[in-house]
Amino acid sequence: MSPAQPSRNESGPTAIDAREPGYDIPARLGDPVAAIATPALIVDLDAFERNLDRMRDRAAALGVALRAHAKMHKSADVARLQTTRGGAVGICCQKVSEAEALMRAGITDVLVSNEVVGEARVARLVRLAERGRIAVCADHPEQVAAFSRAVIARRAETGATGLTLDVLVEMDCGSGRCGTGSVAESVALARAIDAAPGLRLAGLQSYYGRAQHLYDPAERRAALATSLALTAETRDAIRAAGLPCDRVTGAGTGSFEIEGASGIYTEIQAGSYAFMDADYARVRSGDGTAPFAHALFVLATVISVPGRGRAVCDAGLKAVAVDSGLPLVHDRPGLAVTGLSDEHGNLSDPDGQLHLGDQIRLVPGHCDPTCNLHDWYVGVRDGRVACLWPVTARGKVF
Amino acid sequence: MSPAQPSRNESGPTAIDAREPGYDIPARLGDPVAAIATPALIVDLDAFERNLDRMRDRAAALGVALRAHAKMHKSADVARLQTTRGGAVGICCQKVSEAEALMRAGITDVLVSNEVVGEARVARLVRLAERGRIAVCADHPEQVAAFSRAVIARRAETGATGLTLDVLVEMDCGSGRCGTGSVAESVALARAIDAAPGLRLAGLQSYYGRAQHLYDPAERRAALATSLALTAETRDAIRAAGLPCDRVTGAGTGSFEIEGASGIYTEIQAGSYAFMDADYARVRSGDGTAPFAHALFVLATVISVPGRGRAVCDAGLKAVAVDSGLPLVHDRPGLAVTGLSDEHGNLSDPDGQLHLGDQIRLVPGHCDPTCNLHDWYVGVRDGRVACLWPVTARGKVF
Repeated sequence: MSPAQPSRNESGPTAIDAREPGYDIPARLGDPVAAIATPALIVDLDAFERNLDRMRDRAAALGVALRAHAKMHKSADVARLQTTRGGAVGICCQKVSEAEALMRAGITDVLVSNEVVGEARVARLVRLAERGRIAVCADHPEQVAAFSRAVIARRAETGATGLTLDVLVEMDCGSGRCGTGSVAESVALARAIDAAPGLRLAGLQSYYGRAQHLYDPAERRAALATSLALTAETRDAIRAAGLPCDRVTGAGTGSFEIEGASGIYTEIQAGSYAFMDADYARVRSGDGTAPFAHALFVLATVISVPGRGRAVCDAGLKAVAVDSGLPLVHDRPGLAVTGLSDEHGNLSDPDGQLHLGDQIRLVPGHCDPTCNLHDWYVGVRDGRVACLWPVTARGKVF
Repeated sequence: MSPAQPSRNESGPTAIDAREPGYDIPARLGDPVAAIATPALIVDLDAFERNLDRMRDRAAALGVALRAHAKMHKSADVARLQTTRGGAVGICCQKVSEAEALMRAGITDVLVSNEVVGEARVARLVRLAERGRIAVCADHPEQVAAFSRAVIARRAETGATGLTLDVLVEMDCGSGRCGTGSVAESVALARAIDAAPGLRLAGLQSYYGRAQHLYDPAERRAALATSLALTAETRDAIRAAGLPCDRVTGAGTGSFEIEGASGIYTEIQAGSYAFMDADYARVRSGDGTAPFAHALFVLATVISVPGRGRAVCDAGLKAVAVDSGLPLVHDRPGLAVTGLSDEHGNLSDPDGQLHLGDQIRLVPGHCDPTCNLHDWYVGVRDGRVACLWPVTARGKVF
């Protein structure tokens, strides 16, 4: 998928080009849903927009900035709507190639919320600082040194003596993945960033991914209590060392109400709120409400009805990710997905509801790796195809 | 990924084009492995060629045709090598869009080993019959009628009165997925295909996917005994009805020795043999040998070394599929993958072997959905990049 691939928007030019529906693109603008080539990623635009509005309002009420996590959708169109209608100050993503793809498509403020290692990769990252506002995380002094070397080298190459890379300390607040392992390590790393030529110490990242998926509100709150205390202690220690720590970033769809209300975080990195998946729908809010609605579906077609209460659809492991469980059948009581193979979805259909050619909507267990399987989002409104958005950074894992 | 994207081969022109390594392509020809942008799909070309030779020789010894399953790799380059050096009579794949992509890239003999439903999709399938040798499966009379209508419509449109579509009966021999549910149903469907204008009854597909993954040889043999008996009974019943059934196709890497030696199958649909994954390596052959070697790896880079016996690499759920378990670390005793999140692979490293920037090779649990995540294969020989092959039909799930 080329990131230069133009989107086809409701409001934009709708010229039919030479691309073949069902091969290059899943549908044409204006097509009824029944004409979409399946399996396809479809977005319920009304639900999507309500999700954007809801998160914009919640972030404003909590008094924190929203930095929408584009690793979830990898789409410049979705990112643009998040930063305009959706009130986000910018986006974050996980890979340099993702940042490149999204910045080439016009996004200007990106946090690479991850470690970046390797000379060629760091050099690419530094070049992005010439294109817009870019920041990156670090959890090791070797990385800091490599960032500094790359900025200095680029300054020498271009003569742009003011070129600077924003770097945040990433601390491990409980996830057991990347991040510094102690307050002392965090302070030492902050000092190293602050002292390194060409770098600017841009704050602290404290991201507790696992806590966001704890279904029970009390359990989630307990896990985050420890993490919040450690985050505050780290921030205070960096400040006590005479260094700036104005930005504390992290949190996600499952937990942002807690981090957002803590007074510690200045920025929340929610992503899945825009689309919502089956796993996040299991994460119950404190008051039991479901603030966000499913807006993303894998549209599938029934291709076999072998009887005996079974049917088979055309969406398998190459159309929907299963790392967070099987997809759910949306809005069709009595139907369930019982298993997926590469190109098939097995369905139980005890009442024999399904016929050859019927379409069903699957709610993915996990939206991020599901979106990364597809080349296009098909936006649907009032039963018709209203837009086609390329998955701009699909496959950009480098 | 455009299927028109040219490959970069060892033997072909090696002109460096404008594509950027690390963004558009993972490497340039001649680069050392250390320069490959990760995570990347790499192919050990020596091991791959030995796998091709071994399967060519086994199929010849068994006296069956090899129809290589291209759903596994989705690559026109791999398919071409399978049909030349590898002795395959043609390929099979699961989706019309896959067949389109591979035939556009020059492959001429394709079995769509699956049900195809939907007017637009069937029309696309029929157009492929104008381009090369194409066949498809059916398990329901409605499909047969739809195929026939589409051929007749296309004949009327083009004046090509000889246009014919080859259709195989797909029987369920134990997988519990698609396929006719009884001998009588299979015979009735064969009659319907034989009687339908524009169609030619082209044989029987009997594919027992689950049996191919039974690790224990005795268990696998027992499961296949039932399936083989039912397949023979179905073939004989179709013949007894006065209909042709010269082609019986199915089997895969885990089971082809059994179906191939049965005297019932004329064609085996093995795919994974070319690359081999961690799950198929668990399928023990009758004599305990491992006839095929791992030739496909996800090359990953260590991006964090937080200590405490852990490390983190840059290959997560978007670089390696986990439906058949976590990937294995290749050829590095003491290291193991303990979990994957979207962009991270968590590693246990009790001896502290790993340093920032180190590369490791992961053997995917399941090659098919892993290959579908990537845009390129990087072929490696003698420690250098020897070829870049596009994943021609990546994302072609329609």
